[in-house]
Amino acid sequence: MKPGRRPAQTLPLAAVHTDAIGWGAVGAVRVLDQTVLPGDVRYLELRSVDAMVEAIRALRVRGAPLIGIAAAMAMAAEAAGALAAGCVGLTPAWLEAAASRLASARPTAVNLSWAVERIRRVGAEALARGEPPARVAERLRGEAQAVWDEDAAMCDAIGRAGLALVPEGACVLTHCNTGMLATGGIGTAFGVIYTAHREGKGIDVIAGETRPLGQGARLTSWELRRSGIPHRVIADGAAGWLMAQGEVDLVITGADRIVANGDVANKIGTYALAVLARAHGIPFYVAAPRSTVDRSLASGDLIPIEERAGAEIAGSIADLSAYNPAFDVTPAELLTAIITDRGIVYPPLAEGLERLPS
Amino acid sequence: MKPGRRPAQTLPLAAVHTDAIGWGAVGAVRVLDQTVLPGDVRYLELRSVDAMVEAIRALRVRGAPLIGIAAAMAMAAEAAGALAAGCVGLTPAWLEAAASRLASARPTAVNLSWAVERIRRVGAEALARGEPPARVAERLRGEAQAVWDEDAAMCDAIGRAGLALVPEGACVLTHCNTGMLATGGIGTAFGVIYTAHREGKGIDVIAGETRPLGQGARLTSWELRRSGIPHRVIADGAAGWLMAQGEVDLVITGADRIVANGDVANKIGTYALAVLARAHGIPFYVAAPRSTVDRSLASGDLIPIEERAGAEIAGSIADLSAYNPAFDVTPAELLTAIITDRGIVYPPLAEGLERLPS
Repeated sequence: MKPGRRPAQTLPLAAVHTDAIGWGAVGAVRVLDQTVLPGDVRYLELRSVDAMVEAIRALRVRGAPLIGIAAAMAMAAEAAGALAAGCVGLTPAWLEAAASRLASARPTAVNLSWAVERIRRVGAEALARGEPPARVAERLRGEAQAVWDEDAAMCDAIGRAGLALVPEGACVLTHCNTGMLATGGIGTAFGVIYTAHREGKGIDVIAGETRPLGQGARLTSWELRRSGIPHRVIADGAAGWLMAQGEVDLVITGADRIVANGDVANKIGTYALAVLARAHGIPFYVAAPRSTVDRSLASGDLIPIEERAGAEIAGSIADLSAYNPAFDVTPAELLTAIITDRGIVYPPLAEGLERLPS
Repeated sequence: MKPGRRPAQTLPLAAVHTDAIGWGAVGAVRVLDQTVLPGDVRYLELRSVDAMVEAIRALRVRGAPLIGIAAAMAMAAEAAGALAAGCVGLTPAWLEAAASRLASARPTAVNLSWAVERIRRVGAEALARGEPPARVAERLRGEAQAVWDEDAAMCDAIGRAGLALVPEGACVLTHCNTGMLATGGIGTAFGVIYTAHREGKGIDVIAGETRPLGQGARLTSWELRRSGIPHRVIADGAAGWLMAQGEVDLVITGADRIVANGDVANKIGTYALAVLARAHGIPFYVAAPRSTVDRSLASGDLIPIEERAGAEIAGSIADLSAYNPAFDVTPAELLTAIITDRGIVYPPLAEGLERLPS
């Protein structure tokens, strides 16, 4: 390597950052309200940890990596707001309580608790060193920005890593939304799709609607369109039939949590796609940053599965008796590989994940 | 058998008839508008073959057996209406044109063309015999009523035949709507469910929403509720996960067309359920009357698959690029058995279907 040239694997200095989130006025985080997309593009200024908890629960902000970033930013913003208002509140007890409220907003994604723990620890350490509140608040904001920057860089790296797995002219089936609306950057599964498109692979995409909330129909289609990527949205039930017709070359989804043995929790419907892909001999990939890996759990049956309100299925139908598990677990043996920001992990996944730098 | 006792296999004289259709005033057929269920229970008086074609295309009347009955009744009603108005119009050419317009309203279900062909033939034969118009119109009405009565009786018979396949306390997964809103009687797959419930088997039902039009969420749930059958509606993508959790004991769906080798066309999503059932060792049954069997086609790849408007998926989402095949084909080898009004057909299905009385 010649002096002055950076090694090829170095992350670019300016990874693409999502526009689904941003810093607002002092004390506020600006979030794109994803519940009204694509009809309305509306930003909200959230001025407290509790407002962010509500936004995460109501899926105004969603996507495993993005809710981690948003939660981290909400802690930093509330601290800055309190400071600006002259309140005394930046204490270890406040850090503890804020982190705990945010972490419990949704149970399945691991990024959320991982991100707020980073903020809590940075704050607790600074307070323990006796730093003045203004300096502590600065540190919180710096750490939250780092969570975001790192995620954006990881998305770029995932996109590059996955490129080798996408054949020229391939049709990629994806599920739910894993793009700029779900992460700090170009996305996870969507990051691979976006990168393959940008690199001229001539791909097209099939996106499942992803009922009941339509993250595929409402959000992924919106991202595909604004990225100029040819695509079709299908009813979730049609995926198997399109596989049987030879219309799908590979499946890539994101992940809300990947545990030590390689089992993957992701949006409900992912497991069925993995079974169907296996039955049709189609590769099935999961794309996720390292922050999604939770090696503290041995296997997928230990992952808490969020059950959401039946009303999400019922919509305007009165008195519908509905059952709405929001996630499912795909066993490691159905995965062809996991695409991470540190490269592709092939089976045996347990060993590959163990070797992954943390 | 003692004199005076009917053999046990004789159909009951009064099979349960659907309330989704009925004769209206002279010249009209009364149909329940299924596009506004379950919010609105609204009947329409359709006064022409063309009005029925529109209602079938728009899915105001739907379900393979029911659209056959409705089409037959529309021909009879238009003939009666013309007669009452003093018009001369009951000719072989009118019969031909009306049957052809109705048969082409939807391409996949075979019952539609089968039913209108019955009416056309009865009318053509009566005209050839030189019968007066009033007598011919009476014959058309009689034949249409017979199509309905026979279907209602076949539903009862399907329900009784399927009873043996439903274990006590079983959880039955079904797809789309196959009940009184889809047939002339208690239904096909729903007929089995309804009969098992009525016979005290203590079953419960999981109904997929059946996107994009929600025949499961809107229609099957409505029928399950009014029949007092315990049930839950799920997102279509959740079916595989519930199978993996051991929550599904058997799957029963209807059929829009069954061809000679036993391949089955049915609502999009059926094929995926069959693959998933096989992967989990769960029996997969199709329930249908003989009128759904089309032995003129050798295999499922010859069945025309209706592609419907992408707007059904898009709903209120503007400019969505959607792909909406309305049916898929499940290959015979994924079926555990076919439940018909003449008993259960087990593999090899081609042989069993050949032996089925027509």
